[in-house]
Amino acid sequence: MTNYWDDLQTIRKRRPLIHHLMNYVVMNDAANVTLAVGASPIMAHAREEVEELAAKADALYINIGTLDDRWVESFLLAGKAASKNNVPVLLDPVGAGATGFRTETVLRILNETEVSVLKGNGGEMMALAGVAGMIKGVDALGEANLDVAEKLAREYGVTAVITGPRDYVSDGRRSAIVSNGTPMLQYITGSGCMVGSVIASFMAVNRDFLVTSVEGLVTFEVAAEKAERRSYGPASLKVNLIDELYNMKPGDYELAKVEFKG
Amino acid sequence: MTNYWDDLQTIRKRRPLIHHLMNYVVMNDAANVTLAVGASPIMAHAREEVEELAAKADALYINIGTLDDRWVESFLLAGKAASKNNVPVLLDPVGAGATGFRTETVLRILNETEVSVLKGNGGEMMALAGVAGMIKGVDALGEANLDVAEKLAREYGVTAVITGPRDYVSDGRRSAIVSNGTPMLQYITGSGCMVGSVIASFMAVNRDFLVTSVEGLVTFEVAAEKAERRSYGPASLKVNLIDELYNMKPGDYELAKVEFKG
Amino acid sequence: MTNYWDDLQTIRKRRPLIHHLMNYVVMNDAANVTLAVGASPIMAHAREEVEELAAKADALYINIGTLDDRWVESFLLAGKAASKNNVPVLLDPVGAGATGFRTETVLRILNETEVSVLKGNGGEMMALAGVAGMIKGVDALGEANLDVAEKLAREYGVTAVITGPRDYVSDGRRSAIVSNGTPMLQYITGSGCMVGSVIASFMAVNRDFLVTSVEGLVTFEVAAEKAERRSYGPASLKVNLIDELYNMKPGDYELAKVEFKG
Repeated sequence: MTNYWDDLQTIRKRRPLIHHLMNYVVMNDAANVTLAVGASPIMAHAREEVEELAAKADALYINIGTLDDRWVESFLLAGKAASKNNVPVLLDPVGAGATGFRTETVLRILNETEVSVLKGNGGEMMALAGVAGMIKGVDALGEANLDVAEKLAREYGVTAVITGPRDYVSDGRRSAIVSNGTPMLQYITGSGCMVGSVIASFMAVNRDFLVTSVEGLVTFEVAAEKAERRSYGPASLKVNLIDELYNMKPGDYELAKVEFKG
Repeated sequence: MTNYWDDLQTIRKRRPLIHHLMNYVVMNDAANVTLAVGASPIMAHAREEVEELAAKADALYINIGTLDDRWVESFLLAGKAASKNNVPVLLDPVGAGATGFRTETVLRILNETEVSVLKGNGGEMMALAGVAGMIKGVDALGEANLDVAEKLAREYGVTAVITGPRDYVSDGRRSAIVSNGTPMLQYITGSGCMVGSVIASFMAVNRDFLVTSVEGLVTFEVAAEKAERRSYGPASLKVNLIDELYNMKPGDYELAKVEFKG
Repeated sequence: MTNYWDDLQTIRKRRPLIHHLMNYVVMNDAANVTLAVGASPIMAHAREEVEELAAKADALYINIGTLDDRWVESFLLAGKAASKNNVPVLLDPVGAGATGFRTETVLRILNETEVSVLKGNGGEMMALAGVAGMIKGVDALGEANLDVAEKLAREYGVTAVITGPRDYVSDGRRSAIVSNGTPMLQYITGSGCMVGSVIASFMAVNRDFLVTSVEGLVTFEVAAEKAERRSYGPASLKVNLIDELYNMKPGDYELAKVEFKG
């Protein structure tokens, strides 16, 4: 089903434009990750231009991490422009459940735009699923499972991706569990945001979003596994991870640990 | 008095939530430093949610580095919510004295909220102390001494921390001088902001703020000393410093150079 | 004509204040690059203080990367204050041609302030020159040549710098081509923005802007060449590049590949 290497090669060949509305904390890392997989990032959030950019992008990545009222306006403008122009949208509901403002913003984006992939950590996704969730900081890991992913996928008409030690992916009909990665990723701020940039890059070249979600997760996490072997802590891990993404080889995908279901 | 290792272990065990209103330049590094010492950072500054987050945080870190009128509103909202909920506040008065807007903002925060620790470089702190000060760029070092720290501590009812080649700390009654660190830290933008994240993490687990200020300074600066041994310049120093914070061991604190007084 | 080492030493001695209105994505890297060459960065963009800061800076660097209506106001306030106080201005027209909002903003800055150096990539500069240009993401390279640089220099009364595999520099009368650097720089987001910080640092100590543009380009790109030898990918390249800037030696300038004309 997945064809990691071919899709990665297509990204590198086409250099698709990935329009990010990315939080301030991770903007730089997300742009560098996008470049490392071969796509072309543009980070822009002004209401004066987001519609124009989203309409001609190859994928739109909305990450609400450092939202305020002006960002929310831009999320909706960009999301609607993307939807209208058949540009696939990835939504990262950072901190959903942590404040009312965040949960409400995520629901507005889900209702008013066409989100293809909804990707969050366990706490965020459980909060959105109405399952009792507790979040302690946006980098914390909650617990979740494939049922939550399926519920979210059906409820919101999206491919749901719950990241964690094991990643749960479901489009409501088919599902997958990805078990790559390393625990040290939790010590890199925005590692979950960065994996979104990789998934969005695959979404730009392949419209089977269950597949592209798995491809993005595996690519990022296999690179992290390789990187960790020569890292002493989380800061060198981040540097080495981006280097590994840039140097990805076909054989690296033999490390993929994916279980497809349904 | 200090018990570096025990307090660090408490941070790692409790993973306290450190709410940052951090400048754009250093957001990413500050979040990664916070994770490396074992705490849980949340970087959020929208007026719509800062009160909700500050009220449930374990410490609030207000850094005015890239302030504008909207940030100022959020500083005050967050600071008041923290004060009301007995959440300790660290204030970094970046560029105080450099423009009227900055000095005025710092004074408003000091007057309208309950600041526990006021941490700045020599020029900033001298400007605030009414001592004639000149600032040339926010990364420049001014000159200051323990008298300035004591004066500030008494005047504003805070623990004052003046960073520099030697760090001066005073709560108005007791004081300390920390002589760790390396000159190359001056070449990392926001190294002073990052040390604030470490101090705030200790403040979240120990309410003796003279002690936690010293613990934060020593932890960061000892890690910097160890990092420098295998660094070729300031960019590798930053990577290695975060890695060393993550790998901190009890014996590392034997490198502490602290002189307590009073 | 150029005297790389002497001008670099002057920067290190005077530590000139480089006021940046820099996009969010590259703020941290630009500040670190500025520190590495020995200058003193200040990143501030609030309308409440940009005039005060720009007026006393040694150079002003306006980079429109993540503009919105509030940034535009600050660009103009800072630019006018700099012009009035004889502070040289470098303008980076990020994404000019990609949206109407960007092109319009660049033209307003060029018309209403005294820009000394206009530095952009091929697509941006071609768009501004009225030559048919297509931009695909702000990190993409367009094609351009010395004629475009000369046309821009004369039309806008600036020193025009077009970055790319070969950099084209012209002040309308004299011109130069710089052929240093490495293709991997394209995989570091904002590498073009960072070179602006280096040029602005040289502008602060030497008012022959054709010369200082060449000095900035050569310094950054020679450091990149040295860095690449011990880098595995773009993330380690960025770390090593900043380290090399910090460790620049006189002999490094023997690597300069510059062709002066006119």
